[in-house]
Amino acid sequence: MKVICSKEHLIEGINIVQKAVSSKSTLAILEGILLEANDLFKLTGYDLELGIECYVDADIRNTGSIVLNSKMFGDIVRRLPDSEVLIEVLPNNSVIIECENSHFELKGIPSDTYPALPSIKKENAFIIEQKTIRDMIRQTIFAVSIDENRPILTGSLLECKDKNVTIVSIDGFRLALRRSTVENENQNFNVVIPGKTLNEIVKILQPVEEFITIYSTQNQILFDMGKCKVVSRLLEGEYLNYNSIIPEEYETKVRVKTKDILSSLERASLITAEEKKYPVKFNISDEKIIISSNTEIGAVREEVRVDTTGSKLDIGFNPRYFIEALKVIDDEEIDIYFTSSIGPCTIRPIENNDYAYMILPVRIKNE
Amino acid sequence: MKVICSKEHLIEGINIVQKAVSSKSTLAILEGILLEANDLFKLTGYDLELGIECYVDADIRNTGSIVLNSKMFGDIVRRLPDSEVLIEVLPNNSVIIECENSHFELKGIPSDTYPALPSIKKENAFIIEQKTIRDMIRQTIFAVSIDENRPILTGSLLECKDKNVTIVSIDGFRLALRRSTVENENQNFNVVIPGKTLNEIVKILQPVEEFITIYSTQNQILFDMGKCKVVSRLLEGEYLNYNSIIPEEYETKVRVKTKDILSSLERASLITAEEKKYPVKFNISDEKIIISSNTEIGAVREEVRVDTTGSKLDIGFNPRYFIEALKVIDDEEIDIYFTSSIGPCTIRPIENNDYAYMILPVRIKNE
Repeated sequence: MKVICSKEHLIEGINIVQKAVSSKSTLAILEGILLEANDLFKLTGYDLELGIECYVDADIRNTGSIVLNSKMFGDIVRRLPDSEVLIEVLPNNSVIIECENSHFELKGIPSDTYPALPSIKKENAFIIEQKTIRDMIRQTIFAVSIDENRPILTGSLLECKDKNVTIVSIDGFRLALRRSTVENENQNFNVVIPGKTLNEIVKILQPVEEFITIYSTQNQILFDMGKCKVVSRLLEGEYLNYNSIIPEEYETKVRVKTKDILSSLERASLITAEEKKYPVKFNISDEKIIISSNTEIGAVREEVRVDTTGSKLDIGFNPRYFIEALKVIDDEEIDIYFTSSIGPCTIRPIENNDYAYMILPVRIKNE
Repeated sequence: MKVICSKEHLIEGINIVQKAVSSKSTLAILEGILLEANDLFKLTGYDLELGIECYVDADIRNTGSIVLNSKMFGDIVRRLPDSEVLIEVLPNNSVIIECENSHFELKGIPSDTYPALPSIKKENAFIIEQKTIRDMIRQTIFAVSIDENRPILTGSLLECKDKNVTIVSIDGFRLALRRSTVENENQNFNVVIPGKTLNEIVKILQPVEEFITIYSTQNQILFDMGKCKVVSRLLEGEYLNYNSIIPEEYETKVRVKTKDILSSLERASLITAEEKKYPVKFNISDEKIIISSNTEIGAVREEVRVDTTGSKLDIGFNPRYFIEALKVIDDEEIDIYFTSSIGPCTIRPIENNDYAYMILPVRIKNE
C-alpha cells in the first residue's frame, strides 16, 4: 500500500474512526485503525460493538492494507506539519509515514485478522437531517440507565412509526422522550441502541442540515453519512411501553422560563450534596415556586416567578434529574405538569409534543 | 459583619485567594476563606505556606469577620446572578448570602482561631514590572526538582545583586536561568522560594506593565500588588552555586529556529516512551541536525536546518528536557552550545544573556 493525502484530511478521518477504537483491549489489533487503499482510501475503527468507516481523499499509488496502533498513529499525524503525508507499507509490514523532513517507521499488523464490520441489508431505511437526529440523541441520552441489572434500559429506544421517529430513554426514576417527523415512505420498526454507542455517535454527527440515511436490521443499525458510516450493535429484548408511563392528566400546571428555574435549581443543588440525596422542595403557589433545601451544610431558598394553573402543591425532587432535563431544552419557556405530591411530573414544550421529560418525586418530610 | 458588594468583584477576589486555601486539611478552618470587614473588605486564604490577601470593593454596613468554607462559598457566588450580593453574619455565626431571589444560610466558623499571616518588615524591597517577574517564574519553574532528598532544589533561587535579578531552578539533570534588570536602588539578597508556591504565584501575577514591590526577610517573601498581597514561606539552606555549573566554553555552536527544533523534538518524543527513557540522538553537521530515535515501537528521523560553528558532534538527550525549555522561549531563533558528546549543552538567546538553559546529555550506544 502506498498513498499520499493531506494531513488535514487524514487527521479528520482519524479523529472520527478513533471513537470506535478500543483504548484497552486484550487484542492489539482492536486498538488499531485499519487502513485500506483500493479504489478509495478508507480508515476503519471497530470495537466489536461500534464500527466506523471513513473515506479520506488520497492519491493511491499502490493498493493494500495494514492496521496501525490508533493512539500512536493519531498522535504522530496530529503533530506533523500541515502538508502532504506519504503512507507506505513495506513487505515486512513496517509502515513508513513521511511528511516534509519527518520520517517515521512504525510496526504495522497485517490486516487479515481484523474483524469484518457486520454487513447491513439496506431495508428499513429512513432519511433524516443530521442535525435533527443529533439533537434527538443529545436530548435523551442523559436518562439512559447505568444499572446493568436491566440491560435493556442501558440503551435508548428508537421507534419509527409511519412518519414519526421517537427516541426514549428511561432509567427507573425518569424518562426522556424526543419526537420528530420524517418525510419519507412509511416505516415501522423499533430498535434499542446501546447508550455507550449513542454517546460516541452524537460526537460524530454534525449540527448540519444535510440528510443522512439510517438502516436497521434486527441486530445492527447503520448511520450512513456518505463519506462516513457508523454501524452499531443493538440491544436485544422488549423495551418498556413508555406510553403507559407518561401521565396524561394533571392537577397543577406551571409555566416558567427555562433559564430561571434551571439557575435556581443549580444554585440550590450546591448544598444538597448528591451522595447524601437531600431533595429540594418545590412549594408551588399562584405566582411563584419557592425552591428550598435544608442540609447539614446550610439552607437555601430560591424564588422563581411562574404562572400556575390548578391547585397549590408541595413536592420534593432530586435536583439533578430536573437540571439534566432543563439543560437540553432549547425553548425559552416550558410547561411543567404535576399530578400530585407523590406522583410523577412532566416537562413539556408549550405548543407541541416534540419532547417530554418525566420525573418521579422524592418523598419529603412534613415540616 | 454586613457588607454589600458586586458579584463580579467578589468572585474576582475569591478566585485569587482560593489559590492559597488548603483543599484538604485536618483543620476545617484552613479550608476556609477569612472574610473581614473593617475600613475595607478583605478576603484571605492561607495554607500556612502561602498566604494571599485581597481587598474587594464593598459597602460596609457593619464591621466584623467570619471564616467560610472556600469551595462552598466560591461555588455559590459563582452561580449567583450578576448583581449585588449581601453578606451578613448572624450572632450564631450563620452567614446569610443574598442576591436577587436567592437566599443562602451557611454555617461560618468564628475567625479568632484563623492563623495570622506572617508580618514582613518592609526592607530588602525591589520594584519590578508584574509582567517581567511573571515571565521570569514561568520560564524557570519547570526545572524545579521534585526530589525531596535535596529539599533546597524543590525551590527556585531568587537572587538580587545590584540592579540584576536572577531566578534559577536546578533539578540535577538541567538548569533554567532567567535574568532581568531593575531600576531601583541596589539590593543584595538571595532567597529560595518553594516551587509549589511559585506555581500558584505565577497564576495570580498578570501579564501587565504595572509595577509590584517584592519584600523579603530571612523566612518570608511578600509580593505586594496593592489590592492583593501574596506572602510565601522561604526554603532554608544554601542554594547551589549555579555560576560554576554553566559551561563557558564550547566545541560546537548551532543557531536554529526555536519552532523548528521544538516541533521535531515533540514528534520524535512520541515514540521514545518516557518511562522507558529512550533518548533521542542529535547528529550535528554543518547545515542540519538529524534527530533520531529507535525504540520498540518504531523509528523516527527528523531533519532540522541549522547553522553550525565548530566541529560535528553526535550526542543523546532526554527529549523532554529540551522540549520544556524550548516551550518557554519567546525568541524566534536561539543558539545551542555543545561542549562535547558527554558534556552539558546550553541554550542561550542570540544577542543577550537574559536566559540560559543547561541540559545534561544521556550516553548513547554507538551504532
